[in-house]
Amino acid sequence: MYPNLIRQIKRYVAIDDREVLVINKYIKLLNLKKKEDLLKEGQPCRAIYFVEKGCLRMFFIDKKSVEQITQFALDGWWIADYFSFIDNNPSEYYIQAIEKSEIISIDKLVLDDLLKELPQLERYFRIIMQKAVAASQLRIKLMTELTKEEFYLHFSTSFPEFVQRVPQYMIASYLGLTPEYVSELRKKNR
Amino acid sequence: MYPNLIRQIKRYVAIDDREVLVINKYIKLLNLKKKEDLLKEGQPCRAIYFVEKGCLRMFFIDKKSVEQITQFALDGWWIADYFSFIDNNPSEYYIQAIEKSEIISIDKLVLDDLLKELPQLERYFRIIMQKAVAASQLRIKLMTELTKEEFYLHFSTSFPEFVQRVPQYMIASYLGLTPEYVSELRKKNR
Repeated sequence: MYPNLIRQIKRYVAIDDREVLVINKYIKLLNLKKKEDLLKEGQPCRAIYFVEKGCLRMFFIDKKSVEQITQFALDGWWIADYFSFIDNNPSEYYIQAIEKSEIISIDKLVLDDLLKELPQLERYFRIIMQKAVAASQLRIKLMTELTKEEFYLHFSTSFPEFVQRVPQYMIASYLGLTPEYVSELRKKNR
Repeated sequence: MYPNLIRQIKRYVAIDDREVLVINKYIKLLNLKKKEDLLKEGQPCRAIYFVEKGCLRMFFIDKKSVEQITQFALDGWWIADYFSFIDNNPSEYYIQAIEKSEIISIDKLVLDDLLKELPQLERYFRIIMQKAVAASQLRIKLMTELTKEEFYLHFSTSFPEFVQRVPQYMIASYLGLTPEYVSELRKKNR
C-alpha cells in the first residue's frame, strides 16, 4: 500500500507481513493538491509526515510578511515542526505541498501506540532522526561557510532533482537569495 | 557513577539497577583538560559524546583559516559529527573541551552492542535525536530571521549560562559576529 515507507523501514529493521499490516492500521494517507497546507502557523504540529510521493516545503512568514523556506521534503523524507510536535506548542511554520502529493501522516498519540505495538520501530525512527541531525549539521555548516553563489552551486549539484521539480523562487527563498540572483546564477552556470 | 546520564535516560525509559550496570559496562569516561580535543579534522568521528560535566565546542576551520563554531554542548547534552559517525568519513570538524570536562563516550560498535542488549535505549536515543532535530530547526530559523544583534540578544537571554561560561570570542564565532561587535552589544545591553 505504501511501498516507499515500507521499503525504507525494511532497510533498517526486520518486519514481516503481519507487522506491515499493523503499520498500515496506524497510519493515515493524505492526498494533497498542489499548494494545499498540511500545517498552518498557529496550529500545533500534531503529526509527523512522510512523503510517499510528491514534494513539500516548510516555511515561516517573517516580519516583512515574506515567506522564508527552511526545508523541503521529497519522496522518502520525513518532515514536521519537531518543537511543536514535542511540546504541543502552536507552530510558527506552514508545511505545504509544492505539487500533488501522497503523504503518510502519523499522529503523536498514534505514534506512541504504534511504537508500543512494534517497539522495533524505535530503532527505525532513531536512525532516521540521526540522519536528520546530520543533514541539519551540514546545512548549518554550509550556511556559515559558503558564499551565496557557492551555496547555490552546491545545492544544484547535490540535488539536481530539486532544481527540476521546485520553482526557482522557492529555491531562492531556501538559499536566502533573490529570485533574480538565482536566475542569473542559473544562466551563468548552464 | 554517571548520575547525569542515568538521570536523563530514566526520564524517558524505565531502567533498573541491573540495567544501569549494563550501561556502565559499555560506556567509557574521558577526563578532558581545557582545550583538549575529542575529535580532530580528518579523523572519522567514531563515537557519540555526552557531557556528564563540562563544556565542549564543535568547530571547523574555514578557507581563511578561521575557526567557525557551529555547536556547543553543556552538561547533559550529546554531541557528535553525525555524518562522519554514520558513514565513517573523515570529519571536517574539531570537538574540543572549553573547560575541564567529564565526557561519556560510546563508540559506534559499542553502541550497536548496547542497543542489542538493552533495546529500550533505542527509545531514549530516538527521543534525544528528535530534540536535536528540533533544536537545529530553531537554529536555522533564527539564522534566517534575526539580525545579528537580535540573534545575540536571543542567545544571551535564552542561554545565560553560556554567556557566563563561554569566552566572548567563541560566542561571537557561533553567532557569526566579530568579538568587537559582541563586546559592543554586551555594553549596550547591560
